Amino acid sequence: MASGGEMQVSNKQVIFRDYVTGFPKESDMELTTRSITLKLPQGSTGLLLKNLYLSCDPYMRARMTNHHRLSYVDSFKPGSPIIGYGVARVLESGNPKFNPGDLVWGFTGWEEYSVITATESLFKIHNTDVPLSYYTGLLGMPGMTAYAGFYEICSPKKGETVYVSAASGAVGQLVGQFAKLTGCYVVGSAGSKEKVDLLKNKFGFDEAFNYKEEADLDAALRRYFPDGIDIYFENVGGKMLDAVLPNMRPKGRIAVCGMISQYNLEQPEGVRNLMALIVKQVRMEGFMVFSYYHLYGKFLETVLPYIKQGKITYVEDVVDGLDNAPAALIGLYSGRNVGKQVVVVSRE
Amino acid sequence: MASGGEMQVSNKQVIFRDYVTGFPKESDMELTTRSITLKLPQGSTGLLLKNLYLSCDPYMRARMTNHHRLSYVDSFKPGSPIIGYGVARVLESGNPKFNPGDLVWGFTGWEEYSVITATESLFKIHNTDVPLSYYTGLLGMPGMTAYAGFYEICSPKKGETVYVSAASGAVGQLVGQFAKLTGCYVVGSAGSKEKVDLLKNKFGFDEAFNYKEEADLDAALRRYFPDGIDIYFENVGGKMLDAVLPNMRPKGRIAVCGMISQYNLEQPEGVRNLMALIVKQVRMEGFMVFSYYHLYGKFLETVLPYIKQGKITYVEDVVDGLDNAPAALIGLYSGRNVGKQVVVVSRE
Repeated sequence: MASGGEMQVSNKQVIFRDYVTGFPKESDMELTTRSITLKLPQGSTGLLLKNLYLSCDPYMRARMTNHHRLSYVDSFKPGSPIIGYGVARVLESGNPKFNPGDLVWGFTGWEEYSVITATESLFKIHNTDVPLSYYTGLLGMPGMTAYAGFYEICSPKKGETVYVSAASGAVGQLVGQFAKLTGCYVVGSAGSKEKVDLLKNKFGFDEAFNYKEEADLDAALRRYFPDGIDIYFENVGGKMLDAVLPNMRPKGRIAVCGMISQYNLEQPEGVRNLMALIVKQVRMEGFMVFSYYHLYGKFLETVLPYIKQGKITYVEDVVDGLDNAPAALIGLYSGRNVGKQVVVVSRE
Repeated sequence: MASGGEMQVSNKQVIFRDYVTGFPKESDMELTTRSITLKLPQGSTGLLLKNLYLSCDPYMRARMTNHHRLSYVDSFKPGSPIIGYGVARVLESGNPKFNPGDLVWGFTGWEEYSVITATESLFKIHNTDVPLSYYTGLLGMPGMTAYAGFYEICSPKKGETVYVSAASGAVGQLVGQFAKLTGCYVVGSAGSKEKVDLLKNKFGFDEAFNYKEEADLDAALRRYFPDGIDIYFENVGGKMLDAVLPNMRPKGRIAVCGMISQYNLEQPEGVRNLMALIVKQVRMEGFMVFSYYHLYGKFLETVLPYIKQGKITYVEDVVDGLDNAPAALIGLYSGRNVGKQVVVVSRE
């Protein structure tokens, strides 16, 4: 028994087993239960967190590869819990900026309780009159990604034409709604009828199509954009990008947010139509949300009223329990999720 | 004999025979001599020009293909003279902006005398204390291309690292010199020892290499840019671009000016490393000089003093006579030219 009356509790964890090649499998992760003392070490400047919601995000695939030159972030550590964005309750704080009872979102572990020393990645949650899980999506990293990518990279103007791939995902559904709020014509693509219906009927896209049913993506894009695309919000890469490039309009902009079709390939597909960048004078710009978090306050001021007025909606795919987290994460790469994939650890 | 005493003279022409697939050959053009009346038609608002210098530019390959979706400009007309940039003397003018005796540069025909109706593409030459042929290169379209691409697209800062491919060409040699004048570290690549020597000894590049001698372009770039590339001025495309992408520094910029390695391929090479755009947050922007001619006055103000002070130098590869023009043009695609390829039609 621990001395000083500290409480020992069990801590279920999702452990990253080893580096992955190709498509990740559930068995690349394993569930384990360890015990944890619900007390920060003496002198710690970190936080003891009770995790509530965890976020499954496509970029996490990069962390499953042993250090790669073109990786977003550090690799996961085999034998340690998966790390990702989440929403948590502060149980104990060694950092004067946080107090016990605070709600936070940011990087945490895939486990019931985490001790976080890298507190600079955590944002305090002040607005709790929205679903807390939104801080894994709409009001968290994916939301900021959509906001920065669309407004900062694409410089959209009323009346422009916008194409969003992976459009029903955590980021895409918001980009489409931002585009409509800006007065753009917006078309999205996704991989099932259910998702296409969501795009048209729930998120207000002008048009949407199932890319799996289009033998000729170029022809599909010509159909929806007879006069070309001003803005492409790129989530997919590979063949989709190649089909988009010749359909860009002069002075078009491509925000390169992700390339989910490429993450599990041993070698990325070759993109051939890059001459379009010259002849259409297109700007293609990659970005990472980390560079835009200074806009988070402005983002909340913009988006919270839209949510309350019903002008922005958000669809989540919620699974319950850490036991289901590995399958939820893997499902991103086959498009199993409908909307933002969230894992509930605890509803408190 | 023509009435009214108008002079009929012979007019040697380089005729475009028919659309080209793959590498162009000299026999895709033919020399012919027609006769021309040295008088504008009654009521013409055009110009009668005596052509002095003609410019061979890589983009001209696109005009040899039957209408292509990703072409810069209209195709040449089979049976008519090649059209390109040149320097000419105005013999007769139906346009109040030009007078007989004026020197102009802009689009003209590959022939001794041309009647130009599209006079909006012509710039009057005011500074004649530099070699007139410079208006096909340093002070013409390629010069403006280097200026707009480097200063407007790349936003260079002192101390940044710059890589230029096809660096001894009409555009590349200037980009390197602009970069040095900005206080950048500059490396260029070219396809022969002679060109590499020019880069280092004549144009002041910090380093230069022969890409044909590098089995591993990525390794070569790592050697010259151990800390990465801030600015890539892209003239080549394909494998070169693929090697550059992972070597870009965070927030790097790529000005996509041309892709000469791709122009003669039936299908462009696939570029695989585009994920680098995201993880390095790179901006890759295509441009065409046509969008920047409003800066031509500012460009001259900048560059003319540099020329007079000997701070900018320029190497031309000059051939004499229209008879040699087809070989000169074709030579661009095998890198036969050393510096800007010019054809002299007449030294007056």
